Amino acid sequence: MRIADIGEFGLIDRVARGLPTPGEGVVVGIGDDAAVLRADEGRYLLTTCDIQVEGVHFLKDKIAPRQLGRKAVAINLSDIASMGGIPRYLTISLSLPGETAVAYVDALYAGIREECAAAGVYVVGGNMAHAPLIVVDTYLMGEVEAERVLLRSGARVGDRVLVTGSLGDSGAGLALLLNPEASCEEVHRQKVLEAHFTPQARLQEGRAIALSGLATAMIDVSDGTVSDIGHICEMSHVGARLWAESLPISEALRAVAQATGREALELALGGGEDYELLFTAPAEQADELAHLVRRETGTSVTVIGEMVPFTEGITLLHADGTHTSLRGGGWDHFRS
Amino acid sequence: MRIADIGEFGLIDRVARGLPTPGEGVVVGIGDDAAVLRADEGRYLLTTCDIQVEGVHFLKDKIAPRQLGRKAVAINLSDIASMGGIPRYLTISLSLPGETAVAYVDALYAGIREECAAAGVYVVGGNMAHAPLIVVDTYLMGEVEAERVLLRSGARVGDRVLVTGSLGDSGAGLALLLNPEASCEEVHRQKVLEAHFTPQARLQEGRAIALSGLATAMIDVSDGTVSDIGHICEMSHVGARLWAESLPISEALRAVAQATGREALELALGGGEDYELLFTAPAEQADELAHLVRRETGTSVTVIGEMVPFTEGITLLHADGTHTSLRGGGWDHFRS
Repeated sequence: MRIADIGEFGLIDRVARGLPTPGEGVVVGIGDDAAVLRADEGRYLLTTCDIQVEGVHFLKDKIAPRQLGRKAVAINLSDIASMGGIPRYLTISLSLPGETAVAYVDALYAGIREECAAAGVYVVGGNMAHAPLIVVDTYLMGEVEAERVLLRSGARVGDRVLVTGSLGDSGAGLALLLNPEASCEEVHRQKVLEAHFTPQARLQEGRAIALSGLATAMIDVSDGTVSDIGHICEMSHVGARLWAESLPISEALRAVAQATGREALELALGGGEDYELLFTAPAEQADELAHLVRRETGTSVTVIGEMVPFTEGITLLHADGTHTSLRGGGWDHFRS
Repeated sequence: MRIADIGEFGLIDRVARGLPTPGEGVVVGIGDDAAVLRADEGRYLLTTCDIQVEGVHFLKDKIAPRQLGRKAVAINLSDIASMGGIPRYLTISLSLPGETAVAYVDALYAGIREECAAAGVYVVGGNMAHAPLIVVDTYLMGEVEAERVLLRSGARVGDRVLVTGSLGDSGAGLALLLNPEASCEEVHRQKVLEAHFTPQARLQEGRAIALSGLATAMIDVSDGTVSDIGHICEMSHVGARLWAESLPISEALRAVAQATGREALELALGGGEDYELLFTAPAEQADELAHLVRRETGTSVTVIGEMVPFTEGITLLHADGTHTSLRGGGWDHFRS
């Protein structure tokens, strides 16, 4: 049996099952956006890691090294944002061929520096190694007040599902890269490529959501909307019903979807790499929370569905009252 | 200019110079075996990372997956040991081809579990990704009492240099792998291959050295004895004089060096991957410290030299009173 047969999440489950139960210092181990560890009185440490492998996560001739540096940091920041935390310290493991230009590494680090500076994060260590291809592996430590941490496991039946910004733009950017002959307005092309190459972690939004005390669960949209809400469903033992007409789909996504022969809805549900925050809150407080985040950060927040009993699974409710069953649909490494 | 032209340490210096000075929460950033961060009152957090890239750090057909898992953890444990710390939490970023057998990953994790269990470390998170080759990148968090942490920067002129165990065995193991036709006694072959494939982090020894309050600086021997003592010299602004006749060279190393046409002394000084602890202490307390570590852990400790003024550089003193100047000589990624 090959790992391609059981997929990324099957492999994670298999590995996690074999590990001993962590001691009392570990609040949450494997199975959330970041590990949660007890620190000082009243505070938790958060740790997360993410990798960018040349030819798998990025193509060297498509993404500038400065963009790659920014993105490598941003996707980690997003994992701390989705816990409601404050990012603090970054460690970078960089592997690359000896023939790589020093100027390439300089530009990569310029991007890392920019993204760290904007987030108040310090680079505290790392490792450099030779490898036949470029691998940027980043490890981020953050912190959060113990009573404010937001996990995947807190959603309840009846909660509303909310999301920051718009969904599917990064996937549309990738669709454009894969169809370079597709033609659309420059403003739309710019927007979706930017979403793909330099995603912004929703740090302020994550803090506002956590400090509000109104949210019950949170995750960032990295694998894809359906796949990520699936993680909340699994950990909270609930189902989800998404409202098709409510999904925040940008004008740029519509234009690029049309130009590349894709469905905007499909990209919004399964495109991945949006790095928006997907969170849940009791129905009676969802509008208040959406309003609060908009007011404090200027970022739009949309109510896109509701949590339902586990047995109902994950469905998409259309305007005409019909349902579509949604499964996975997001990005799973190893599966093709 | 390519990175092969400036080398691993040149690249690290270049990158580190460009980074902003960390805030007051960072006691030591880039430039030691682990980063040192302020935590609770009186305690420091330690973080370190290390990578194993297929074809660079290991050959898949030479090292069993279980050994690889153990080694990937052990080399991180060694970085915490060399700070005098206690290892706590491990995060694993694993990248591998989809066609990898699930049994391979199972065995890799069996090794990771074994090494973690023996050290009291919990796996708290990680990342799985597809890649054209196997990359095991591990991040370890540990802790140490603030007044006990041992840095590279504390050595003073006149201090003695001490080392645990023996030097060069791992390099001899590699020499055997590269010369499969070399013939030597099986007991010696076993010993050096074990040193190479399943190095043991000197955790107990590191704690005993730290808690003694007698040592002034410490590092683990990963790049090679000369290269690693060079790191202490650089950070402490001192030189070092090693005593050729005092270096702890095992019978196995002598036998394998002879069988493979290598010099035992050269392997002890530059072989690398020994993961022994190299530390310094005032001359009048060196013997007491060596005795204390032997008594508490059963591990041999040898005084192998002394720290001298920076301008004298790093030299090797032979029995006949002559000196050899030593430079680098250890492992530098990117340089050939």
